Amino acid sequence: MDIKKYVRTIPDYPKPGIMFRDVTTLMGHPQAFRRAVDELVQPFAGLKIDKVAGIEARGFILGGACAHQLSAGFVPLRKKGKLPYKAISQSYELEYGTDELEMHEDAIVAGERVLIVDDLIATGGTAEAGIKLLRKGGAIVEAAVFLVDLPELGGCKKIEDLGVPTTCLMRFDGH
Amino acid sequence: MDIKKYVRTIPDYPKPGIMFRDVTTLMGHPQAFRRAVDELVQPFAGLKIDKVAGIEARGFILGGACAHQLSAGFVPLRKKGKLPYKAISQSYELEYGTDELEMHEDAIVAGERVLIVDDLIATGGTAEAGIKLLRKGGAIVEAAVFLVDLPELGGCKKIEDLGVPTTCLMRFDGH
Repeated sequence: MDIKKYVRTIPDYPKPGIMFRDVTTLMGHPQAFRRAVDELVQPFAGLKIDKVAGIEARGFILGGACAHQLSAGFVPLRKKGKLPYKAISQSYELEYGTDELEMHEDAIVAGERVLIVDDLIATGGTAEAGIKLLRKGGAIVEAAVFLVDLPELGGCKKIEDLGVPTTCLMRFDGH
Repeated sequence: MDIKKYVRTIPDYPKPGIMFRDVTTLMGHPQAFRRAVDELVQPFAGLKIDKVAGIEARGFILGGACAHQLSAGFVPLRKKGKLPYKAISQSYELEYGTDELEMHEDAIVAGERVLIVDDLIATGGTAEAGIKLLRKGGAIVEAAVFLVDLPELGGCKKIEDLGVPTTCLMRFDGH
């Protein structure tokens, strides 16, 4: 089954020249969604992952499914100001300016083995912030997994350079 | 296993007098999260649910896990302006003013059987908007499931009055 064909490309979104890869069509397809989650978690079966960390918001959909399938806990990595309890934060660069990712300060017990999940990796800035945040919290980040990679933007290399093995289920050329 | 004890209560959040029920502590606990998802989906095993619709953002975590477990597709119900493709919308009332929930116009094929999922039901305004939106898209909304009910706010009754059977795994008194 070629799950890549279930990703919809939206030209010129959110601005002219960008080919937006819309994964909601893949997630909406029962076999494609099932297959995607199963492929994401399969390499980690039996490897004692304690928690799956999902990046807001589409990373919550895949991350929730991966955590359940691995019988792991789920940790939300949220945009600034969304978490109700005491949080730690990590800033990252946007095209213009910076933003922050946050995690509850007690979300991780030191030494826990964590898998980080998001739908797509572009420049890798958000995933890098997520890894730094998890490490601040005491996690061992075992791996990062993504549905879609945009290899021209170099995100996977950035994450590998942090010492985190990275897997993507499919690649699209262009931005 | 009493999963209710894994919910953290944060007094006076987001404002004085509110007892905020924080489900991230439950989700972070491997057995509690696994149990919660399994209990949410169990009544629907074999009932041919086509899609699970999750309400942004915490409903994505549970909804993604429920969709995968039921081998159903996942449909995100998002806050206004977050979806990349053509969307339909449904407004709902907030304490002050209104907001809108959106769904891709092609997320549902007419006649599909849908389970709607969120972490918590309070007044039920968001879930009601989600059900109306799904029905606009042609869905048969089979049921609504929530981790937490705040029964004093009457949300479950509002959803049942729409003709949608509603299940909650736990209840908390007070707001």
